Amino acid sequence: MTPTPLGPGPEFDLIRRFLARSRKGGPGILVGPGDDCAVFEGGRIAISSDLSVEDVHFRRAWLGPEEIGRRAAAASLSDLAAMAAAPLGALVSLGAPAADVPDVAEKCMAGATEMLESAGAVLLGGDVARSPGPLFLDVVVLGRVERPVLRSGARPGDEVWVTGALGAAAAAVRCWARGDEPPAAARDAFAHPRPRIREALWLAERDVPRAMLDLSDGLAGDVAHLAAAGGFGVLLEEGHIPVHPAAAAVAPDPEEALALALGGGEDYELCFAARPGAVQKVANEFMDSFGVVLTRVGTVREEPGVALHRSDGSIVPPDVEGYRHFAGGSR
Amino acid sequence: MTPTPLGPGPEFDLIRRFLARSRKGGPGILVGPGDDCAVFEGGRIAISSDLSVEDVHFRRAWLGPEEIGRRAAAASLSDLAAMAAAPLGALVSLGAPAADVPDVAEKCMAGATEMLESAGAVLLGGDVARSPGPLFLDVVVLGRVERPVLRSGARPGDEVWVTGALGAAAAAVRCWARGDEPPAAARDAFAHPRPRIREALWLAERDVPRAMLDLSDGLAGDVAHLAAAGGFGVLLEEGHIPVHPAAAAVAPDPEEALALALGGGEDYELCFAARPGAVQKVANEFMDSFGVVLTRVGTVREEPGVALHRSDGSIVPPDVEGYRHFAGGSR
Repeated sequence: MTPTPLGPGPEFDLIRRFLARSRKGGPGILVGPGDDCAVFEGGRIAISSDLSVEDVHFRRAWLGPEEIGRRAAAASLSDLAAMAAAPLGALVSLGAPAADVPDVAEKCMAGATEMLESAGAVLLGGDVARSPGPLFLDVVVLGRVERPVLRSGARPGDEVWVTGALGAAAAAVRCWARGDEPPAAARDAFAHPRPRIREALWLAERDVPRAMLDLSDGLAGDVAHLAAAGGFGVLLEEGHIPVHPAAAAVAPDPEEALALALGGGEDYELCFAARPGAVQKVANEFMDSFGVVLTRVGTVREEPGVALHRSDGSIVPPDVEGYRHFAGGSR
Repeated sequence: MTPTPLGPGPEFDLIRRFLARSRKGGPGILVGPGDDCAVFEGGRIAISSDLSVEDVHFRRAWLGPEEIGRRAAAASLSDLAAMAAAPLGALVSLGAPAADVPDVAEKCMAGATEMLESAGAVLLGGDVARSPGPLFLDVVVLGRVERPVLRSGARPGDEVWVTGALGAAAAAVRCWARGDEPPAAARDAFAHPRPRIREALWLAERDVPRAMLDLSDGLAGDVAHLAAAGGFGVLLEEGHIPVHPAAAAVAPDPEEALALALGGGEDYELCFAARPGAVQKVANEFMDSFGVVLTRVGTVREEPGVALHRSDGSIVPPDVEGYRHFAGGSR
């Protein structure tokens, strides 16, 4: 059974449609749906949820049950990081085929719990039910946040930065899709994403990010949310995209490797906008503290939408569908 | 495809096992997993989640898409009622087969949102993904609570009360299971459960319930949680169980009707323990305010476990498996 990518289009359209119908905000609700997390309790508690569905977000041939749980939890925690929220609690709901109860289900739960607790989130509850189809997890995370960093807030002239390197998780999916075992580094990126929580809190304490999100759907697609939320646009610099070595190893053609970095998803790195010069001041200390590089990938500009400044000097719209095709799409 | 009941046994064992492994509580966490809701933020916020999975909790032949969404939301809201928490916000995660996007998925979401908002819960977020199998929803609800009413807190001699009448939802499932269309009242009980939020808040304001939960798995099974949480037992009075007229209509044999009321699930009524005489003082006002009867169904006693005082004077363990068999089991 080949996973058919649902694609961001219809998924986001559906979310937009039902959210548009619901009331916006309420007493004590600072940020409603549409950002990485909602923020309530007068802006002190952030909450987010993330679904992981077998044969849509992962396959059992790719991941062990503990990894499935860890990865589902990491994806949710990454939403807290995107808001600069400190993990507080979590709920894990699990649907599992009868044959997977208790063994596989319990290992999934153990993996999720381990990841959540290592990030400081206490398991507050959840639900378990039989699934007559795929294994699935819905991980809800709660975080404490003093000053949430929203997707909006970027201004023209701001620099756009990312943590780490991009495209390795997509490279792993690409290998699996063509029947190969991915290189260890690519598999690790897909199976063990590390939500950038400490990094996000560190940057937010220093007032660096004016707008931030996490990269779950690919840089080109996600930066479009950052641009749209602020009402501005982003110009990405082709030559500055930090292509992960594992992506370059899987795709020797530099165009293809770039496509994995720009269009592949599930990197769970941070992408943020900062005032000109603000990041340079802290980049070395950041690298020393976390062993993670910060790379400037572009600039916020007045002109709406996302464009790519190619090495040949041309400015083109990023061909997300093309990238998605290269990347293999696991969603 | 006949839904195979997972049964409360393995489901609860699994929950117990993974929760036992996780840390209990944390800073500001008053109630950890194991009650109807977890309570955090120094005891001010209650949170709970509830999964609804196609062909496990419902079938499409039984419910329309809006009803599927409404019912899933009602089940979660009922957990807030059980804690005497006032609904504040919610997250809805939906998995839907590609063929159901957008139409069925959107109607499910609309139904869930309508139910949540009618109860005062603002839609804070959620997630949407393709499901290669069943339609499913995970509804997470947040509520504000001053003094949560826990499952523990009952003392020997306390009276055990329930709101409303029991067994109608199970009667509907029983009809569907044998290929009949259920009577309108039974179908309505299954398709449109009404979480007893206002009723719970009203009772809690008057300090009536010492321990409370909602009836999702059937009175005999759920009251066992109330008994176990307090370290005591409950003696149910067979002659006092408020059998819903629709259950009596579907099961003309009084033993079978009682089985539906005792062992059938998804009534989403409240069950609570109160000091002797405390409920009588408010029962008429409660009836006038909500049009819902309060019935005393038993007594908390030292002897652990749940027993049934039959009309012939004998005291027997409630035969939950037998009841489950009668009820048809939809889980």
